[in-house]
Amino acid sequence: MGGDHAPECNILGVALALEKLHADTHVVLVGDSGPLEELLKSHQITSPRLELAHAPDTILMGEHPTKALAQKPQSSINVGYKLLKSHQANAFCSAGNTGAMHVGAIFSVKPVEGVIRPGIAGLLPKESGGFGVIMDVGANADCKPDVLYQFGEMGSIYAREVLKINNPRIALLSLGEEDQKGTLLTQATHHLFTTFEKLNFVGNIEGYDLFNDKADVIICDGYTGNVVLKMAESFYSMLSSRSVHHPFLDRFNYETVGGCPLLGVNANVVIGHGKSSPEAIQHMLLQAEKMAFHSIHEKIKTYYNL
Amino acid sequence: MGGDHAPECNILGVALALEKLHADTHVVLVGDSGPLEELLKSHQITSPRLELAHAPDTILMGEHPTKALAQKPQSSINVGYKLLKSHQANAFCSAGNTGAMHVGAIFSVKPVEGVIRPGIAGLLPKESGGFGVIMDVGANADCKPDVLYQFGEMGSIYAREVLKINNPRIALLSLGEEDQKGTLLTQATHHLFTTFEKLNFVGNIEGYDLFNDKADVIICDGYTGNVVLKMAESFYSMLSSRSVHHPFLDRFNYETVGGCPLLGVNANVVIGHGKSSPEAIQHMLLQAEKMAFHSIHEKIKTYYNL
Repeated sequence: MGGDHAPECNILGVALALEKLHADTHVVLVGDSGPLEELLKSHQITSPRLELAHAPDTILMGEHPTKALAQKPQSSINVGYKLLKSHQANAFCSAGNTGAMHVGAIFSVKPVEGVIRPGIAGLLPKESGGFGVIMDVGANADCKPDVLYQFGEMGSIYAREVLKINNPRIALLSLGEEDQKGTLLTQATHHLFTTFEKLNFVGNIEGYDLFNDKADVIICDGYTGNVVLKMAESFYSMLSSRSVHHPFLDRFNYETVGGCPLLGVNANVVIGHGKSSPEAIQHMLLQAEKMAFHSIHEKIKTYYNL
Repeated sequence: MGGDHAPECNILGVALALEKLHADTHVVLVGDSGPLEELLKSHQITSPRLELAHAPDTILMGEHPTKALAQKPQSSINVGYKLLKSHQANAFCSAGNTGAMHVGAIFSVKPVEGVIRPGIAGLLPKESGGFGVIMDVGANADCKPDVLYQFGEMGSIYAREVLKINNPRIALLSLGEEDQKGTLLTQATHHLFTTFEKLNFVGNIEGYDLFNDKADVIICDGYTGNVVLKMAESFYSMLSSRSVHHPFLDRFNYETVGGCPLLGVNANVVIGHGKSSPEAIQHMLLQAEKMAFHSIHEKIKTYYNL
């Protein structure tokens, strides 16, 4: 039920995804079963791998996450997290209220022991091909140095396990490449990365370097990461609406990424774009399947609890 | 002498600028007069509107601003500020060490009385045509709410006087449009803007909105503004290097903007890009002339000292 064009758009996206997902991956549609069944019927979508979980209520995009989660126990986000917590689902994704998805995860499946703040990882296309990680992109507007350090740890695990990048390079987003440049936050974080030499930290990068080959995992607070991700998207959409196309530019289309993994909670969670198209929903589901196949949350758990 | 390709590139830029500047605008080249004279000769650049001010020393791009300014009194940045302070020049611009340009202004011509922190204004192309202001883009990595509020005041004066935007709309860069969204800094700043109703504050905008018509002056800390400006530039350069061109995209070419005004000091100062081409130097000079013609620093002074 999540997203600006739900539920019809979401159902069309699921139909697309069923063709690409692994043959034994099932999709559970969480939402108001009456309208969902009607839509499936009218679009002639049937599959033995399609299930329904009834959730008569919906958290709207503008609602306050904590309040809405408490007041609407039968909302699709709450029901989805129940399925996830009880292991009836291996991953949960939604294009609904981002705050409610984030807070819902913290309330239900909970942060991994040892993780100060779970964060949302964004994927940025690289000039050299493939994608890099930027974290956080909006879960934590204000961050402390130890939180940013953990984003480096979790982002690296994702980059290694899902993006298959060997020994991922971590960089800190700053105003200049020199060590002493940056905010009080980036300076203190830089110090943490260079003191604990556990990670492959390559130093500071600048706004020019978000898409080049200097780093695989870019660390910043959720405010800055959110601005970067949305700005990249606006570039694609401004140029696309002017019929400017190029294979490199087209990789900035959020629809082909589909969703951002929430890292640091005890389950696989993917948060999609509010305005998700069927194409975007499809890729959000593929992203969720990838998270589940690679058991990312288990690997993060193992890392922090060795 | 400032910039990665100085002084030859700068001299070629001056030659281009002389054709476009007002007929009675003089250009004073500040730098090592021997090499400068030779370069002017070898490129056959002569003009009665061209003067030389000898500065045998140069502050390099990587040097620590405060130290370098103290240790190199004969550097082109120090000599330039002496000319500016003694009113032998109406504006000073350089593509050299940004920190030294910023600190040099604070040491010599000094901040306008009442201005807590001078800031650097960046210019972002608008989808609707023209340009908008984003401030700060790097002078102040960490900011407090009252500093951001003043960026709104100074950015508005620049937008009104130079960009000729009537009653400029000010917005705060945040994670969402809702009032309560953002960092502790943006939330407190939002409160200041809505409490003091002096300015045309239109609320929060997101990373999607940097180039659309929601606001004329976008306020953020210097860390975030720096990332935004450099990211916009990298987009242009990545696409341009792939031969993707479009009139809208081409407006992101930093060379056509040339430089960023430093607002809140007692003189007209423009800071250019380290990698400035002759085209960029030309536009930096035109930007400096515009600042002088419109007496921006005087208008900011009047605003704070009424």
